Amino acid sequence: MAPRLPRVLICSEIVWAHDDVKRLLGDIAEVVYVDSPDRKSFLAEFGPGGKYENTVAIYRENDSASKIGTFDKALIDGLPSTVRWIAHNGAGYDPVDVHACKAKGIYLSNTPGAVDDATATTALYLLISTLRQYSVAERSLRELKWKPKGLKSRTHDVTGKTLGILGLGGIGTRFAVLAHAFPMRVLYHSRRRNPDAPAFCEYFERVEDMLAQTDVLSVHVPLRQETVGLVGEKWIRALKPGAIIINTARGKVIDEEAMIRALEDGHLSAVGLDVFPNEPEVNPRLLDFPQATLLPHMGTENQDTQRKMEVRALTNVRDFLITGMGKDLVIEFKKTAKVKQKL
Amino acid sequence: MAPRLPRVLICSEIVWAHDDVKRLLGDIAEVVYVDSPDRKSFLAEFGPGGKYENTVAIYRENDSASKIGTFDKALIDGLPSTVRWIAHNGAGYDPVDVHACKAKGIYLSNTPGAVDDATATTALYLLISTLRQYSVAERSLRELKWKPKGLKSRTHDVTGKTLGILGLGGIGTRFAVLAHAFPMRVLYHSRRRNPDAPAFCEYFERVEDMLAQTDVLSVHVPLRQETVGLVGEKWIRALKPGAIIINTARGKVIDEEAMIRALEDGHLSAVGLDVFPNEPEVNPRLLDFPQATLLPHMGTENQDTQRKMEVRALTNVRDFLITGMGKDLVIEFKKTAKVKQKL
Repeated sequence: MAPRLPRVLICSEIVWAHDDVKRLLGDIAEVVYVDSPDRKSFLAEFGPGGKYENTVAIYRENDSASKIGTFDKALIDGLPSTVRWIAHNGAGYDPVDVHACKAKGIYLSNTPGAVDDATATTALYLLISTLRQYSVAERSLRELKWKPKGLKSRTHDVTGKTLGILGLGGIGTRFAVLAHAFPMRVLYHSRRRNPDAPAFCEYFERVEDMLAQTDVLSVHVPLRQETVGLVGEKWIRALKPGAIIINTARGKVIDEEAMIRALEDGHLSAVGLDVFPNEPEVNPRLLDFPQATLLPHMGTENQDTQRKMEVRALTNVRDFLITGMGKDLVIEFKKTAKVKQKL
Repeated sequence: MAPRLPRVLICSEIVWAHDDVKRLLGDIAEVVYVDSPDRKSFLAEFGPGGKYENTVAIYRENDSASKIGTFDKALIDGLPSTVRWIAHNGAGYDPVDVHACKAKGIYLSNTPGAVDDATATTALYLLISTLRQYSVAERSLRELKWKPKGLKSRTHDVTGKTLGILGLGGIGTRFAVLAHAFPMRVLYHSRRRNPDAPAFCEYFERVEDMLAQTDVLSVHVPLRQETVGLVGEKWIRALKPGAIIINTARGKVIDEEAMIRALEDGHLSAVGLDVFPNEPEVNPRLLDFPQATLLPHMGTENQDTQRKMEVRALTNVRDFLITGMGKDLVIEFKKTAKVKQKL
């Protein structure tokens, strides 16, 4: 009898990379596709004789329509010890409880580089749309009213303005490059100076010093416990009057109430949001601001990038199966790995 | 009695450059502001004792609410022989009859360089919006429907796509630079190779050869008799199936009926339009295409660029008054000047 191949469970729909599943995993794994109606039966199928028994790696992505729900502590704790790797498709992995994963010895990977270009392009769109007020301009045309009145006095060129980037990782760096083409002046703040930052990016150790010079603040930090509400009343008021905030990271990184107050009293002249605290719910008060550009989390939403992301997540599974380690292990594990190396 | 200063007539509202009017013209001209209720009384005021008598230069811009109307042949022919210069604020000067000007010996200037950045930024916005389908995405969110279905399969990254530029002048060149930052592959066609084209721009003498390789066609040719309907059935069908057209030049350069047919049968996957054949009228059939991004001629519509344009047009008046020649004489006069030099 031939040795049984390790089982890989595809927990979210593969939309673009069907051929890549065969190419990357066909010879080294038995690929099983999820078909459980709810979380309880999902977990039960990992038991003896179940469809997912002996699964060693799981592919998943964020899917608000998922019948299993997010990969919270309860779900992770319910997985059997055979599961050693979760390959998350996406940059932000906040819907997976990374601490529960670590406690159970399950590695977690994401798809960092694959999302940079598409997300930064979305940020560039929001930047142009808010500085030039093209969202309200198009709504006016579609109501057959041609141009909204008084728009010139509220709008600006992109060229020459100052962009403040909060979190200069892969997406932030990519956005910096696109913005610098105009050029814009590009500032950034992050916990540490990024040694790989392009030379034209000016580092600010004190975030308030950056905010005081910023025309457009763009948020590029991941959602973690310590980043919830990071952009709150204090930071928003530290921005120049008339500044703009754009967000392609996670809605909860901004204190939405503080942002709405600053829109109401004119301290913020506009916002461009691709993300919201309780997606797919959108706070209807945001719709009252004509100067807001609001997208339904389109950051990576196109077939070219979606295929890239699926392939990258599947490649993490492949690398784990062959070498015991995937390339995109999330940072929480890397810290541990370093500590272990030192010991 | 002090010698009378030459009279300059401001025919359109100066919105941003009030101080610049004083700075540029205060010492060398008597500045008069138009206040005529209609064309007939406008022309009458140029007569003996009239408010506009002895006007030597006119500042004007396109204004659909103008009581005087466009500077067509009838209006130009009605101007007295004292008028020697019309400083048009704008890149496109099709609402001024340049041939009537030439026949009367009135020079015409526009504001070419001042519009490049803002118009190219508008083209970039339309490029991202159409490739990623962000216009329909925002409408879906604002109807509280979150993401439109099936959008991923109709959308693409900007990076790596091929941009075809029709007319590589100031605006086209600026757009090429912004698009190349991704990078995109950049092709162009114009009557002649542009010796100042960036090295990465590939020239196509035969437009069909360019169209066959183009993902997004961007129109940057001025409206002249010979460019009306230039992008017609033949050129549109020469584009790759699923191609996109964006237009920030003039609506009439595209055969709108041919474009609508190609949207209907899917040959074009999307269009991004800032200009229309009969502005401010918009063909309501365009509103039926969810994949269209439609702006009410916002190309240069922001205070930074508007100020730049006003200053540049006023500088042409100043230069004419001081030296007898403004820097931005339109091309039809430059041709004559060359011929005269040769004789």
